Amino acid sequence: YELQVSDGYEVGRVNGLAVMGEDSGIMLPVMAEITPTQSGGQVIATGQLQEMAEESVQNVSAIIKKFSDENISEKDIHIQFVQTGQQGVDGDSASITVATAVISALEGVGVSQDLAMTGSLSVRGDVLPVGGVTHKIEAAAKAGCKRVIIPQANEQDVMIEDEYEDMVEIIPVSHISEVLDVALEGEAETDSLVARLKNITGSALQDGSVAGPSSPSPQ
Amino acid sequence: YELQVSDGYEVGRVNGLAVMGEDSGIMLPVMAEITPTQSGGQVIATGQLQEMAEESVQNVSAIIKKFSDENISEKDIHIQFVQTGQQGVDGDSASITVATAVISALEGVGVSQDLAMTGSLSVRGDVLPVGGVTHKIEAAAKAGCKRVIIPQANEQDVMIEDEYEDMVEIIPVSHISEVLDVALEGEAETDSLVARLKNITGSALQDGSVAGPSSPSPQ
Amino acid sequence: YELQVSDGYEVGRVNGLAVMGEDSGIMLPVMAEITPTQSGGQVIATGQLQEMAEESVQNVSAIIKKFSDENISEKDIHIQFVQTGQQGVDGDSASITVATAVISALEGVGVSQDLAMTGSLSVRGDVLPVGGVTHKIEAAAKAGCKRVIIPQANEQDVMIEDEYEDMVEIIPVSHISEVLDVALEGEAETDSLVARLKNITGSALQDGSVAGPSSPSPQ
Amino acid sequence: YELQVSDGYEVGRVNGLAVMGEDSGIMLPVMAEITPTQSGGQVIATGQLQEMAEESVQNVSAIIKKFSDENISEKDIHIQFVQTGQQGVDGDSASITVATAVISALEGVGVSQDLAMTGSLSVRGDVLPVGGVTHKIEAAAKAGCKRVIIPQANEQDVMIEDEYEDMVEIIPVSHISEVLDVALEGEAETDSLVARLKNITGSALQDGSVAGPSSPSPQ
Amino acid sequence: YELQVSDGYEVGRVNGLAVMGEDSGIMLPVMAEITPTQSGGQVIATGQLQEMAEESVQNVSAIIKKFSDENISEKDIHIQFVQTGQQGVDGDSASITVATAVISALEGVGVSQDLAMTGSLSVRGDVLPVGGVTHKIEAAAKAGCKRVIIPQANEQDVMIEDEYEDMVEIIPVSHISEVLDVALEGEAETDSLVARLKNITGSALQDGSVAGPSSPSPQ
Amino acid sequence: YELQVSDGYEVGRVNGLAVMGEDSGIMLPVMAEITPTQSGGQVIATGQLQEMAEESVQNVSAIIKKFSDENISEKDIHIQFVQTGQQGVDGDSASITVATAVISALEGVGVSQDLAMTGSLSVRGDVLPVGGVTHKIEAAAKAGCKRVIIPQANEQDVMIEDEYEDMVEIIPVSHISEVLDVALEGEAETDSLVARLKNITGSALQDGSVAGPSSPSPQ
Ligand SMILES: [Ca+2]
Ligand SMILES: [Ca+2]
Ligand SMILES: [Ca+2]
Ligand SMILES: [Ca+2]
Ligand SMILES: [Ca+2]
Ligand SMILES: [Ca+2]
Ligand SMILES: [Ca+2]
Ligand SMILES: [Ca+2]
Ligand SMILES: [Ca+2]
Ligand SMILES: [Ca+2]
Ligand SMILES: [Ca+2]
Ligand SMILES: [Ca+2]
Repeated sequence: YELQVSDGYEVGRVNGLAVMGEDSGIMLPVMAEITPTQSGGQVIATGQLQEMAEESVQNVSAIIKKFSDENISEKDIHIQFVQTGQQGVDGDSASITVATAVISALEGVGVSQDLAMTGSLSVRGDVLPVGGVTHKIEAAAKAGCKRVIIPQANEQDVMIEDEYEDMVEIIPVSHISEVLDVALEGEAETDSLVARLKNITGSALQDGSVAGPSSPSPQ
Repeated sequence: YELQVSDGYEVGRVNGLAVMGEDSGIMLPVMAEITPTQSGGQVIATGQLQEMAEESVQNVSAIIKKFSDENISEKDIHIQFVQTGQQGVDGDSASITVATAVISALEGVGVSQDLAMTGSLSVRGDVLPVGGVTHKIEAAAKAGCKRVIIPQANEQDVMIEDEYEDMVEIIPVSHISEVLDVALEGEAETDSLVARLKNITGSALQDGSVAGPSSPSPQ
Repeated sequence: YELQVSDGYEVGRVNGLAVMGEDSGIMLPVMAEITPTQSGGQVIATGQLQEMAEESVQNVSAIIKKFSDENISEKDIHIQFVQTGQQGVDGDSASITVATAVISALEGVGVSQDLAMTGSLSVRGDVLPVGGVTHKIEAAAKAGCKRVIIPQANEQDVMIEDEYEDMVEIIPVSHISEVLDVALEGEAETDSLVARLKNITGSALQDGSVAGPSSPSPQ
Repeated sequence: YELQVSDGYEVGRVNGLAVMGEDSGIMLPVMAEITPTQSGGQVIATGQLQEMAEESVQNVSAIIKKFSDENISEKDIHIQFVQTGQQGVDGDSASITVATAVISALEGVGVSQDLAMTGSLSVRGDVLPVGGVTHKIEAAAKAGCKRVIIPQANEQDVMIEDEYEDMVEIIPVSHISEVLDVALEGEAETDSLVARLKNITGSALQDGSVAGPSSPSPQ
Repeated sequence: YELQVSDGYEVGRVNGLAVMGEDSGIMLPVMAEITPTQSGGQVIATGQLQEMAEESVQNVSAIIKKFSDENISEKDIHIQFVQTGQQGVDGDSASITVATAVISALEGVGVSQDLAMTGSLSVRGDVLPVGGVTHKIEAAAKAGCKRVIIPQANEQDVMIEDEYEDMVEIIPVSHISEVLDVALEGEAETDSLVARLKNITGSALQDGSVAGPSSPSPQ
Repeated sequence: YELQVSDGYEVGRVNGLAVMGEDSGIMLPVMAEITPTQSGGQVIATGQLQEMAEESVQNVSAIIKKFSDENISEKDIHIQFVQTGQQGVDGDSASITVATAVISALEGVGVSQDLAMTGSLSVRGDVLPVGGVTHKIEAAAKAGCKRVIIPQANEQDVMIEDEYEDMVEIIPVSHISEVLDVALEGEAETDSLVARLKNITGSALQDGSVAGPSSPSPQ
């Protein structure tokens, strides 16, 4: 099977990126849906998530719960790492992918499908560095993506080969609001959502000083 | 014991398909029932489901919760993989089987019993590819099924032997609404349910671009 | 100690049957009681139930919740496999025994004590085949039972020795309503309960086509 | 330390009996207390209970919940196997001891302290046979008890040595109501409690036919 | 670091005693705090408690729930074994220490800081014997304590060396109300609390006959 | 990557300190956010916390619940140890860091970013000693911090090398209120918060006698 990148926008579906083994990347879509709950709202994530990936989803949920203006206590948030197989998903580098998919599903706003992204998140919306950025960008380019979002703190790590250089635009970001500004469909609606997101995490945006420690989490 | 395929329709009972070992398939019925709950609605699945099968049921539950127009918080959803024995069930290829059985039970609408099906599902209703399609189709044909639903993304994988070719019609689908359109009893009621299902997952149906990665889950 | 079979009827107590080792059966009583709940109704089963037996109880609970016309959310359902010791109980062949004991306790209607039974259940009330039928019937006969209920799908498996042939009547059934019709005390009350049970699982009774796969669960 | 048996009555404290190793018994007091609950009534049992002992407490709770005429959903039931140390408690032979301690605590009625008891219980109040009866009776006699309650089904197992024969009266019982009739303080109050207990488990008392299988649980 | 014993009284802080290895004792403070709850009142104990220590806290909670005249269902009870490190806490000999710390925190009444204590508890308030009494008393004396509370049943076990004999007063007790009478600050308030505690556990105080079995739990 | 210390203040972000291996320290930021809850308020801590770190968060939660004047039962408290990787976090020495981050997030008051801190906490607000103080101070100095908060009980353990002596001010504290007084932004608001915190833990501040035992927890 070949994973085809489509043009256009899709609600609740975002192209994530992961590292496989030592030196190759893979595109890994994340899908989200918001539903009524049976017995108290919860976040349900599938795709054989290992411990760090589970915690990544918990961190993202902090931003979602602050962002949501619906009564989130009567909703279940479903997050699906699509067809990851038995080996599952580890690490926290899909945090911005998950956040974007859930906000897209919550608001019914499409996400650009020729875009891929990688980035960890703080509970206050800061985009934190990840590992394997170069391999991930190349995987996105091979799959046909035209743009890739990476953490600003990883900008100096990018060493992609010449053949991919003109195929793909690299977009460094430092806050989840910048991710949504790039990824979502519709200028007016996007600006409104970005403003709302900046507002709830406002004080965290004033100086840009948040940075990770010297050992970024792999993948 | 011989598993006999019957004509006609049955509420809450769907013929699923699984792979056994390397090169043989088996028909595996899934049954569903909706009941009052004792202490907060839940999804209860039996048949010794292993991890990926449990997650498959969670993904299906997203669609069920969106679809249901009854107060799902006061209902338990029982899903039974019938007589799977100690070895149990793994993988996510029964996702469309489970979804069909539960919707049949919720609505009291019969499911065609000379039909078998295999397919994974996204939380937004996309039918995703699975493994072992050829062996599964042959198992359905041997059991007397006249039609088999498979994921559209698996269409090129079908290499059934000549003897089965005229026995069984293969129906590729890309969304759960197509599965119901084929499986359920009664033209008018089915059309109404399909429309409702399309409506709740509407934006996901516009371009058909969702596809799985290169490594489909086995079984 | 000798397990004596009594004449007459008892509320909430049913003679089940199990296989021990390779080639002998044992009579295993199941008792049930319905009580007020402390903190949200639940099903509590004791007797060191292993995984398949736990799931069997969950399947039975689907039928009980549909059947009950009391507010089951304020009740606990206690199920006790009596004196099974450290080795406990496995398999799903006591499903009809458990269902009968609980319905007897719920309704306060006696169960025939010279009757024993074995059979698996679907969540919609179909009686499914089990293993070891011959050894179980002989165990029931030895214990003094005059009648034994078995799944219709197991009818051809019965090969009991001559000495037991005239001691015990074998009653094949295909739906839980038939079990109750045989087991419960009082013609009028039983007919009313059977009608209610048929009504809640109605569509499942029309063609009798439900059958298990070729590998029935042992015990 | 020497465990002294006192005359008189104590609320919420009952002398149980256990087997240690192969051939000696020990007296093991059980204490109970009923308290307001913090977050939904529950049964809390301490003393390092192993699996069968935990299940024994669950079986006893069925009788307690039926018996209680207070709103048990706002109460916690504390059961303490006193000073059992790291090795803890196994088996179900303290069932009648636990039931008696809890009912004493619920009703504020004293339990005779020169009495010891051993016996398993069904969820409907039948006293079921246990192992080690002879060693247990001797342990009770050595500790100064004047009376010992045992299951009627164990009556033929009693083979105590001559020296204890005149020290201790053996009282066989077949239902929990008989245990309370012997153990509780005050003729009038006891008769009223026994009547209430018989009433809630009425149909189970009519023929005395309940008996355990041939392999009683040890201890 | 040296653990200094202070004069005066402290709310929610009690000097406990533990045995380390074979032949030395250590003073181990327990602290308690009562707070609003987030989601249904619970008891939260920290300090790497092992199984018997966890159960000890559950037994103590029975007394606390009976004692509390505030709505305990909206409160969390925090219990902290201070700086016990990775090895944590085992055994039930801190039961009276925990009970005293929690009641002090609940009532806002100070606990004497030149006092240490050791003792197990029944759910009805009886102080039960513990191991290592002599080593514990010596540890308390070394740390500067002037008084040590021990279980009355351990009185004959005390064999402290001459050098400590005049430094420390030994106070044997048989009920938790006696512990509070010795430990709490303020004659009038203490008498009122002791009376309340005696009242809720009244019948248990009439004859003093409760005693543990011959094998007291170590530590 | 280099962790840059910024001037100024940040809401919900505090520089913690940890020991790595035998003889080096590391700065480890902790972030916090308060959000609406989906199904009953809870404390959610990420960063692969091991047992002692989990318990440390529970102890801190006691102070937070007492401090909060909002309805904490409808809030989730998110705590994130940022990018700690697979090895995670152990020990309780980040207790004051976590408490400060959460109170900052609850009140929307900034925390000084050129400040780092280490210290354990009692449930009543006492700052308790930790291990590795010297290595932690040097790590903070290297990262550019100008001030480091340590427990008063660790004051005599500080043996930093000459080169760091003039770079960093060491601030010993004995209660969480002193930590906030140093760390928070804005004189008036800080004084008000400190007063509120002193008030809820008032009696614990009168004599300063609380001290840990001789074996402080490492890290
Ligand atoms: Ca834009
Ligand atoms: Ca910032
Ligand atoms: Ca159709
Ligand atoms: Ca689509
Ligand atoms: Ca009949
Ligand atoms: Ca049928
Ligand atoms: Ca009497
Ligand atoms: Ca009977
Ligand atoms: Ca006094
Ligand atoms: Ca007493
Ligand atoms: Ca200040
Ligand atoms: Ca103090």
